Amino acid sequence: MNKNELAGIINQTKGTHPLVHCITNYVTVNDVANMILACGAAPVMADAAEEAADISEIADALYINIGTLCPRTVESMLLAGKAANRKGIPVVLDPVGAGASPFRTQTTMRLLKEIKFAAIRGNVSEIKTIASGSGSTRGVDASVDDVVTPENAGRMIAMMKTISAATGAVIAASGAIDVIADTDNACLCRNGNQMLCRITGSGCMESGVVASFAGANPRKLFEAAAAAMSFVGLCGEIAAKNVLKEKRGTGTFRAYFLDAADTLTSEEFSEGCRLEQR
Amino acid sequence: MNKNELAGIINQTKGTHPLVHCITNYVTVNDVANMILACGAAPVMADAAEEAADISEIADALYINIGTLCPRTVESMLLAGKAANRKGIPVVLDPVGAGASPFRTQTTMRLLKEIKFAAIRGNVSEIKTIASGSGSTRGVDASVDDVVTPENAGRMIAMMKTISAATGAVIAASGAIDVIADTDNACLCRNGNQMLCRITGSGCMESGVVASFAGANPRKLFEAAAAAMSFVGLCGEIAAKNVLKEKRGTGTFRAYFLDAADTLTSEEFSEGCRLEQR
Amino acid sequence: MNKNELAGIINQTKGTHPLVHCITNYVTVNDVANMILACGAAPVMADAAEEAADISEIADALYINIGTLCPRTVESMLLAGKAANRKGIPVVLDPVGAGASPFRTQTTMRLLKEIKFAAIRGNVSEIKTIASGSGSTRGVDASVDDVVTPENAGRMIAMMKTISAATGAVIAASGAIDVIADTDNACLCRNGNQMLCRITGSGCMESGVVASFAGANPRKLFEAAAAAMSFVGLCGEIAAKNVLKEKRGTGTFRAYFLDAADTLTSEEFSEGCRLEQR
Repeated sequence: MNKNELAGIINQTKGTHPLVHCITNYVTVNDVANMILACGAAPVMADAAEEAADISEIADALYINIGTLCPRTVESMLLAGKAANRKGIPVVLDPVGAGASPFRTQTTMRLLKEIKFAAIRGNVSEIKTIASGSGSTRGVDASVDDVVTPENAGRMIAMMKTISAATGAVIAASGAIDVIADTDNACLCRNGNQMLCRITGSGCMESGVVASFAGANPRKLFEAAAAAMSFVGLCGEIAAKNVLKEKRGTGTFRAYFLDAADTLTSEEFSEGCRLEQR
Repeated sequence: MNKNELAGIINQTKGTHPLVHCITNYVTVNDVANMILACGAAPVMADAAEEAADISEIADALYINIGTLCPRTVESMLLAGKAANRKGIPVVLDPVGAGASPFRTQTTMRLLKEIKFAAIRGNVSEIKTIASGSGSTRGVDASVDDVVTPENAGRMIAMMKTISAATGAVIAASGAIDVIADTDNACLCRNGNQMLCRITGSGCMESGVVASFAGANPRKLFEAAAAAMSFVGLCGEIAAKNVLKEKRGTGTFRAYFLDAADTLTSEEFSEGCRLEQR
Repeated sequence: MNKNELAGIINQTKGTHPLVHCITNYVTVNDVANMILACGAAPVMADAAEEAADISEIADALYINIGTLCPRTVESMLLAGKAANRKGIPVVLDPVGAGASPFRTQTTMRLLKEIKFAAIRGNVSEIKTIASGSGSTRGVDASVDDVVTPENAGRMIAMMKTISAATGAVIAASGAIDVIADTDNACLCRNGNQMLCRITGSGCMESGVVASFAGANPRKLFEAAAAAMSFVGLCGEIAAKNVLKEKRGTGTFRAYFLDAADTLTSEEFSEGCRLEQR
C-alpha cells in the first residue's frame, strides 16, 4: 500500500464522481453532503421506503448512518441495503451511538445480519459494541477508556479482524490513532487533530468519504477505507493550522475543514499521509 | 423589464419581510432559512399535517421542496398548498430529483394536479421530467446532456411555455445559462458561477429566494422569478471571486454566498444583473 | 449574583462536559449541536420513542425544542421528559412558535402539564403565549409590539414570576433586552446584537446553552439561565464586531458566533457580561 496507490484512490473519486446514496441523520446531513461533494463524489439523500431501493439502484455506493434512526428510516435502510447488495455496489455503515441505547445496538445488529457491508466505520466504543453485541458508549462519543495506543493496537486489530471475518467488511475505528483492518490487512493512521472532536459530524463525514472512495474504487475497499481515514485526518490538520494562525474557533474550523477537502491535491495528500502498515 | 424594476423587486422584499412558509428537505433547510433571511424575508418551517394549513394561512408565500419527501410530509404539502391557494398567496415548487425515482416523479405530478403554483424552479432535467411526465435525472443533479446553450435555448423556452400554459406557473430552469419563462415572456440569465454546483443546496436556496421575492411581489411573478435567478447567480459570482482571492474552498464559499445575499445593494444588483429578454 | 459566580457556571460546564439530550428541530439542529460543544457540553440527538427515555437516562440534561414538531416526536418529548424528571436532571423547553398555530400552542401546554421544566426560554411573544394559553406570534419571530424596554420591564417580570410560580421553572425571555426571572429573582441582560435576528437558530442555540449550563450546574438554575443569556449575547457582540471589521455578512457571522463561544475566556465573559439585577 504505497502513497501513490492511495492518491490514485482519491484521483479516481474526483475523476468519476460516484453517486452516493445516503440514509443519514438530520444533525450532520448537510456537512455530509458537502464533504461528499468536496471529496469528488455526488450525494443523494433519500430515506423514504417508497424510493429507497430505487435510489440505491441508480447509485454507485450506499451510506447508512443511524445517528437519528427511527422505525421509518430503519425500514428504508434495510430496503436500500438489500437493493445495493443485489446490484453489488459497496455499502458503508456508521453505527452512531451503538451501545448508547438498546434500540441503537439492536438496529446495528439487525442491519449487520440482513445487509452485507463493504466497510464499517465508527469510534472505538461503537466498534467494540459490534464485537460484543452490547456496549456502553457515552451518548455518541467514545468512552474515555476506549483509546487506541501503539501498545494496545494489536489487541484492537485482532478484535477488528474477527469482526471483519464475521461480516466480510473492512473495519475502520477512529480515535487519536485510527485503525483500519480486514481479515488480511491492518494499518494505523496518525493523521488528525483534536479540533475534529469539537465539531459535530466529523465521524459522519469521514464515513461519507469512505463511501465515496469505495464507490469509485469498489475493488480496492481496504485501500479506499485507509485513504479516506488519512484524507479526513489530514484535512483536519490543515484546517486546524489555519484556524490557529487566524486565532479563530470551531465555527471557522468547520468551513476550513471542507475547504481543505475541496482543494487538497494528490501531491499534498501523498506528502501528508501518515498511514503505517501493521 | 428594466434593471430598476428588478431592483425594486428586491427592495420590496427587504422592506416588507414577507413570511415564507417552507416545507423543505432536511439536507439544506438551514441554508434555505438563512438565505430567505439574507434576501429580506422571514422563514417559518412547519411540515406537520396538524398545522400545515394553519401556518400557510398566516404566511405571504409557501415554498414546497421535495428533496427528502416522505408520505407524511407529502400530505402536509397538499394541505398547505390548498390553504395557500385558498388564501391566494404564491406557491413555489422545487421538484428536487423529479425523474430520479417513480415516487419523486409521481409526487411531483400529484402536487401539480392538486395545487396551483405561482412558480416552479428546477434544473433542466427536472423541468423536462415535468414536461414529459417521466425522466432520467442522475440523483438530484441534472443529466450532463441537459445543458442550455444560446443555440438550443429557443427549444427549451418553447417547452417551458407549454408547461406554463398547462400549470399557470412561471417556470425557471437553472444551469450554466438559466431560463425563465411564462406564457408571454422569456429571458435568459447569465449570472452564476461553477462553484454553486460544488455545494449542496444552491438550487434549494434559489427556489427559496423565488418564494421570498414572489411573496413580496405577488403581482409581478415573472419579474420576481427572473430577479431571484439573477440575484442568486450574482451572489455566487461575488462569493467565488472572494474565495479565489483568499485561496479558500467550498466551505468558505458557502458562508460568503450568504454574506453576498445579506449585503448586496440594489446598485450592485443593477450593475451585475445579466438578464437578457428573449 | 456576581460576575465571578457567573463565570464559575461556564467553567463548570467547560470542565465537566455534561451530556445534553436534545429533541429539537431539523432546521437548526446542527448549529445547536455545535453551540453545545462550543460552550463545553456534549450533545446527543435522539428523537425516536424507542430510545427517548433510554437516552435521557444517561444524560445530564434534556433539551426539548418544538421548532419542527410532529406527533411522532411529541410522543418522544413526553417519554424523554418523564424519564428526565424521574432521574432528576434539568429539562429545558424552547416553545418555538407557540402561538403561531393551535398545534404548537396546545403541544406547549401539554408539555408544561406533563413535564416539570427547570427552565423555559423563548421570545417575548412565546412567553406571553404560555402566560395566556393562546397567542399571536408571527411565525417563529416575536411580534413587533412585544418589545421589553426599561420602562415596561417590571410588567414583564411580574408575568414571568407568575409563570415561574405555576411551573417551577426559571423563565428566560429574549429580545433587545433579555429578561430572566423565577419566583424569587429577576434580572435584565443587555448583551446581544441585532445580527442574531438575521440568522436562523440563535434562539435555539441559546436554549441549548441554557440546557448545557443547567446540566453542569443543576443547583444553580437561575444563575445558569442568566449566564447562558449573557454568554450568547456576548458571543453575538464579538462576532458582529469582527463581521463589521471585515465587511462580511450573516454567513460569516454564523461561523464567528460559534468561534466566539468556543474561545471566550471567563475573564472576557466577566468583563463583557451586562446583567442587571432587578
